[in-house]
Amino acid sequence: MNRIEDFIRDIPNFPKDGILFKDIAPLLQSPRGVEMCLEELLKLIGDQKIDKVIGIESRGFFFATLLAQKLDAGFIPVRKPGKLPYKTLSQSYALEYGEDAVEIHIDAIKKDERILIHDDVLATGGTAQAVCKLVEKLGGKIVQCNFIMQLSFLKGKDKLKEYNVKSVLEY
Amino acid sequence: MNRIEDFIRDIPNFPKDGILFKDIAPLLQSPRGVEMCLEELLKLIGDQKIDKVIGIESRGFFFATLLAQKLDAGFIPVRKPGKLPYKTLSQSYALEYGEDAVEIHIDAIKKDERILIHDDVLATGGTAQAVCKLVEKLGGKIVQCNFIMQLSFLKGKDKLKEYNVKSVLEY
Repeated sequence: MNRIEDFIRDIPNFPKDGILFKDIAPLLQSPRGVEMCLEELLKLIGDQKIDKVIGIESRGFFFATLLAQKLDAGFIPVRKPGKLPYKTLSQSYALEYGEDAVEIHIDAIKKDERILIHDDVLATGGTAQAVCKLVEKLGGKIVQCNFIMQLSFLKGKDKLKEYNVKSVLEY
Repeated sequence: MNRIEDFIRDIPNFPKDGILFKDIAPLLQSPRGVEMCLEELLKLIGDQKIDKVIGIESRGFFFATLLAQKLDAGFIPVRKPGKLPYKTLSQSYALEYGEDAVEIHIDAIKKDERILIHDDVLATGGTAQAVCKLVEKLGGKIVQCNFIMQLSFLKGKDKLKEYNVKSVLEY
C-alpha cells in the first residue's frame, strides 16, 4: 500500500445500479494513507494564500478540516438545505432527475477572502459549481477547486471552466 | 475571544421551536479557535492509546478527523442509514417521536482495537449510546466518549454510564 489509490475501494452499484463508487473509507482508516493524501492535496495548492477552506457535505468535510488546519485557514461547511442553523444563502443545481441545493452561512465569507473549495470527488460538477456561485455571491475569491479524485468521463471540469480545478487522482 | 465558549453561537428555535442550538460555525471559522478546542479535546484523552477515532455524522466529523491525525489513529465515520457504501452494521435508537439509526462499516474495527468516539454535542445520548453498541458488536474497546460540549440538563451521561464520558464544555 504505497499509493493513495491502493487505499480506495471500488463498490459496484452504489448509490444506485450501474455506478461504481469510489470508497475512501480504507484511506480514512489509515493514518499513513490520510497523511499521504493530505500532502498531495497541499501540493496542489502550493504556496497560494488561503483564508478559508470550504468542505462540501459530507465526505468533503474529512480532508477540508485537515487542509484548513495545515493552511492556517478557517473552515466552512457547505451543507444540504436545512442543516445549517444560522442565516443561509442557498443555491440550487440540476440533478439527472430533479434538483438539489446547497447552503452556506451568510457570514461565512468576507469580501475578497481567498477561498479553497474541497470535496472528495468531482463527478458531474453540479454541486461544486453551485458552491462556486455561493462563494462569489458572498464576495469571496475562489483560489482552487480541490478534489481527491475526478471522474473525467463525467466531464465535471467543463462546468468549472473558469476555475482552477485540481485533483490528486483521475479516473 | 480567549475562551472556546466565545466562539460558540446560540441559535434560538433550531432545529425546532424551543431548542437553543449551540452553533460551532464561528469556532470552525477561526484557526485559533479550532486549535484551542483541539488541544482541550486532546487533554481529555491524555496519554491513552487510541487505534481509531469515530466521528458521528455530520458535525462529529469536523474534530474527529483532526483528533485522529493528532493521535496517529485511523478515522471511522458513523453515518445515517444508506450513506456508507460498503457492508454495514446498523443500530437503531429511540427519538422523542419514532426512531432513527446509525451505521458503521463492518470492517471498520478489528477485535480489541481501542476506540475514541467523538461528537460535537452530547444531548440526550441516544446516538452516542447506539454508536457504543456498534463498537462493541464489532469487538472494539471504548476508551472514551469525547464531546466538545454536553447539555447536562438532557442527562445524556445517564445513557453512557458504563463509559468514560468527557467534554470540554458543559451547559
